[in-house]
Amino acid sequence: MESIYNFSAGPAALPKQVLSRAQQELLDWNGLGVSVMEISHRGKDFLACAEKAEADLRKLMSISDDYEVLFLQGGGRGQFFSVPMNLAKRGSFCQHLLSGQWSQIAVTEAKKYMDVDIVAKASLEDGMLMVPQPDQWQIKKDAAYFHYCPNETVDGIEINWVPHSKHGVPIVADMSSNILSKTIDVNKFGIIYAGAQKNIGPSGLAIVIVRKDLLSYSREDTPAVFDYAQQAKDGSMYNTPPTFGWYLAGLVFEWLLENGGLAEMEKLNNSKAQLLYSTIDTSEFYQNNISTDYRSKMNVTFHLNETSLDKLFLSEAEKAGLMFLKGHRFVGGMRASIYNAMPLEGVQALTAFMQDFEKKHG
Amino acid sequence: MESIYNFSAGPAALPKQVLSRAQQELLDWNGLGVSVMEISHRGKDFLACAEKAEADLRKLMSISDDYEVLFLQGGGRGQFFSVPMNLAKRGSFCQHLLSGQWSQIAVTEAKKYMDVDIVAKASLEDGMLMVPQPDQWQIKKDAAYFHYCPNETVDGIEINWVPHSKHGVPIVADMSSNILSKTIDVNKFGIIYAGAQKNIGPSGLAIVIVRKDLLSYSREDTPAVFDYAQQAKDGSMYNTPPTFGWYLAGLVFEWLLENGGLAEMEKLNNSKAQLLYSTIDTSEFYQNNISTDYRSKMNVTFHLNETSLDKLFLSEAEKAGLMFLKGHRFVGGMRASIYNAMPLEGVQALTAFMQDFEKKHG
Repeated sequence: MESIYNFSAGPAALPKQVLSRAQQELLDWNGLGVSVMEISHRGKDFLACAEKAEADLRKLMSISDDYEVLFLQGGGRGQFFSVPMNLAKRGSFCQHLLSGQWSQIAVTEAKKYMDVDIVAKASLEDGMLMVPQPDQWQIKKDAAYFHYCPNETVDGIEINWVPHSKHGVPIVADMSSNILSKTIDVNKFGIIYAGAQKNIGPSGLAIVIVRKDLLSYSREDTPAVFDYAQQAKDGSMYNTPPTFGWYLAGLVFEWLLENGGLAEMEKLNNSKAQLLYSTIDTSEFYQNNISTDYRSKMNVTFHLNETSLDKLFLSEAEKAGLMFLKGHRFVGGMRASIYNAMPLEGVQALTAFMQDFEKKHG
Repeated sequence: MESIYNFSAGPAALPKQVLSRAQQELLDWNGLGVSVMEISHRGKDFLACAEKAEADLRKLMSISDDYEVLFLQGGGRGQFFSVPMNLAKRGSFCQHLLSGQWSQIAVTEAKKYMDVDIVAKASLEDGMLMVPQPDQWQIKKDAAYFHYCPNETVDGIEINWVPHSKHGVPIVADMSSNILSKTIDVNKFGIIYAGAQKNIGPSGLAIVIVRKDLLSYSREDTPAVFDYAQQAKDGSMYNTPPTFGWYLAGLVFEWLLENGGLAEMEKLNNSKAQLLYSTIDTSEFYQNNISTDYRSKMNVTFHLNETSLDKLFLSEAEKAGLMFLKGHRFVGGMRASIYNAMPLEGVQALTAFMQDFEKKHG
């Protein structure tokens, strides 16, 4: 086998350079003679590593001092309860946009803590999946917050607009699967959160970017380790953080900065997605039914018209070094997750394979 | 420098063999050509790894089928709220034993969810720190549960008895810093939990061993990712688990089994602790004021009689490759954490250094 390309939706591929460096220094980090995993998070060595990671993330995303950046545990799902608990005193209800599986799960969890008002729901229009635009629904001025998921990992839907509330209702975004994939204006958001295991690092770490004026609305019984104000006060070290994940995230941030930052990443991600979608669209063998404006650049879902060939497609792909292309069990078909760590060559290898497979079996 | 011995209280030293193996297969695990960090937790490769880790832990601790073993996030502190939330419907109050810093913090968090009755508190008797024995206090029959911390990492206190309730009140133990250090009878406990970063693996993982009959008492608003019943149903994969930590914990369990299991570990830990405490006790230069029955075999705290020498002691120790001996900021002095991964040679090097330092400065 020549090269292996890992299309896993998450935990997902990490940049080779990052893993190689981690491997090299796994037993002797920073000249200490021990692993970065084996030292106190409160010691000067790890603190410096943690602070650099935060500073690099702030640089990458142009995060201003109006925001805290937290490195927490619990993944994206941990924020499904943390957001309503931390913003409980802002209002008795929140609003959610439903664009796919993950935004649906977020609603189920939020309902334990607040009334949830669904502003709109993705639906089929002329056979293509669409998300209703912000001019078709309203953010209410007394909502505690508005929540949406700009990239639906399971469905392969990405939303490129950012909703705006003229009443200053904070916009909360679950960016688990498209954070760091392109430039965004953080100032449009009250809270951005993301599980690490797609574009940041290994699973077990979550990043929360929260505007400082939102730190005083938590329920009294918010668990301390998920209390934004508590963690902000303690530099995300109220409890022992996932130090190896934090360190590895720092290496990913360095790698991004060395490679031109998010603007360059965005160009590359555009090229990768364009190549893959055009391969699908120019074929009579593969299909994707998501409206072009809402197609994810991170998770490209597609179906074979002849679903009886799914198994063969997957096994042949694996033989060609194209790994983990099986779609999520909720939607079936195929899914190519092409996060930042996926090089253009990986997508080229996939499209070449797809065309070849079509020739043989189409 | 000859050898480096890492006395960090946590995140703590991991077995060298475990780290070496992790290093070797960091970029190509299980012949997949990708890292164990880069694959789906729901794929067959990771599932097999996860199941083997659980099976090995069950073997090591003789955990019966009456118990679920959960691999969660949030560390030990994550359980400070998870325990009262998951056992809320068992009663309106819980009982806690106060033996040091960690059991105190557990109380502060539990009070958000339940009334807390303190059964007893560690105190000085004739200048020695003691924990009141179970015959001096009572577990009430209508308590939701009884909670204690068998090893206080900060204070260096270890409790060797297990309280018993004649009314069947579940005993909950925070074993974060002494799990796997000796044989215990799991059947005496309702819940055992532990943050991984001492004797299990890297930080960011917590193990919860919970008796199955305790899975039906949770509050309605228990966060799904911390709901024992939900996680038990989903094999700890309701959300994406910290896969690298789980994998590494599995390697630690294998290492323990290969080295004679917990009985052998207990012998070794006894030898290490005995050597260190006898060095302290036979000296006029060092002191430890914990009653001999309650001295921790994992975290050996001691003070220099001449505290002005603390800094010099630490810097000379570091030059000798004896790392991270500084005591916790709450208690000062020194602390040698000698978890499973610390070989006898490390303690021998430390005691030799202590005797040498005493000769020079005593």
